[in-house]
Amino acid sequence: MPRTRRKRAIVLLSGGMDSTTTLYIAKKRGYRCHCLIFDYGQRHRREIKSAARIARLTKSDFKVLRIKLPWGGSSLLEKGQKIPAGRMKRRVIPSTYVPARNIIFLSFSLSFAESVGAEAIFIGANVLDYSGYPDCRPSFLRAFERMAKRGTKRGVAGGRISIEAPLLRKTKKEIIELGCKLKVPYMLTWSCYRGLKRPCGSCDACLLREKGFREAGLEDWAIR
Amino acid sequence: MPRTRRKRAIVLLSGGMDSTTTLYIAKKRGYRCHCLIFDYGQRHRREIKSAARIARLTKSDFKVLRIKLPWGGSSLLEKGQKIPAGRMKRRVIPSTYVPARNIIFLSFSLSFAESVGAEAIFIGANVLDYSGYPDCRPSFLRAFERMAKRGTKRGVAGGRISIEAPLLRKTKKEIIELGCKLKVPYMLTWSCYRGLKRPCGSCDACLLREKGFREAGLEDWAIR
Repeated sequence: MPRTRRKRAIVLLSGGMDSTTTLYIAKKRGYRCHCLIFDYGQRHRREIKSAARIARLTKSDFKVLRIKLPWGGSSLLEKGQKIPAGRMKRRVIPSTYVPARNIIFLSFSLSFAESVGAEAIFIGANVLDYSGYPDCRPSFLRAFERMAKRGTKRGVAGGRISIEAPLLRKTKKEIIELGCKLKVPYMLTWSCYRGLKRPCGSCDACLLREKGFREAGLEDWAIR
Repeated sequence: MPRTRRKRAIVLLSGGMDSTTTLYIAKKRGYRCHCLIFDYGQRHRREIKSAARIARLTKSDFKVLRIKLPWGGSSLLEKGQKIPAGRMKRRVIPSTYVPARNIIFLSFSLSFAESVGAEAIFIGANVLDYSGYPDCRPSFLRAFERMAKRGTKRGVAGGRISIEAPLLRKTKKEIIELGCKLKVPYMLTWSCYRGLKRPCGSCDACLLREKGFREAGLEDWAIR
């Protein structure tokens, strides 16, 4: 009997909690996963290391893609700018917004998907982001999918490359609860915006993470 | 009297005839141009040199962005693969198709546009390409524009970043005639897919170029 080819997916993996949970969801759904990790001049490289470790742990193929934007516009990329401390106001685009970052990431994923014959792209975009970051919103993700349908070889041939954002409408608490069921190794993930040895505990990402664990009634092993 | 700020545009510049003509059209329309040149592992670097020379000549700001796709899928990127000689069949996706290339290029342009406050992105996409390359089709370009509206800071704030493809429905002859009126320095442009000292004269790009000049009744100084 001929073996059927397993369906494939590209997973955008940053090394954080959301993208790691998303990888485990894609695996659970039966996809063979190809992880795409970006080294785009983040101020620290901790998250790239975390991402590569997680990809290896799950026996996923992965590629690290290095891109350097020769223009500014984000406190996440510019060494001089300060990462704001404390929780950010939602519905305001924060200074850590990197112009068109997810658009660029998803575009590379499309190229990767065409090259390995993947039919889905998984992204950890989440409701908590999309008031602030335009390129996390559901209407953007749908528009990207329609554009992909028209602009790729697979799309015009009648195939589909879907954009899957399974965490889109979940709270951090729900994400952590789901992730624990899927045995996501959260102690290997990295959330902090600052690149110190241990999470700073005071930036927006750290505070969100702490709140999520607290609400789920779980302990965050990564910061012990 | 306060000086009004000149409107700005990003121009995707490859160093070929179409993108160079497009740059001159954008300038003619009054835009201050920021050229984006990609070094994406093309088999030759002649066209990058040409592009930089043209950008300098027109006193446009320009950035060269280096990206290396760590996956294959195109004879334009893989050293082992042969560039096909002779004219290509239209309506067939050629082996020189780079998966999602224009999607990636346009995505970086969006990021650049957000960072300099540009309201338009000019691309030299043309009717002759769009039977072969999905990411040159008018319906793709419109879908990209809609996606950009939803996925950028400028877009969600009610601003517009339009995708302008002024050559879309022109023949090579019409492009050359228009370019000559605008004093486009065609002798500085580079079309050949092969990276020899002089154009090979036998690849698809060379044959298309030759046909264009012949039909316009003009001489191509670049190949003398």
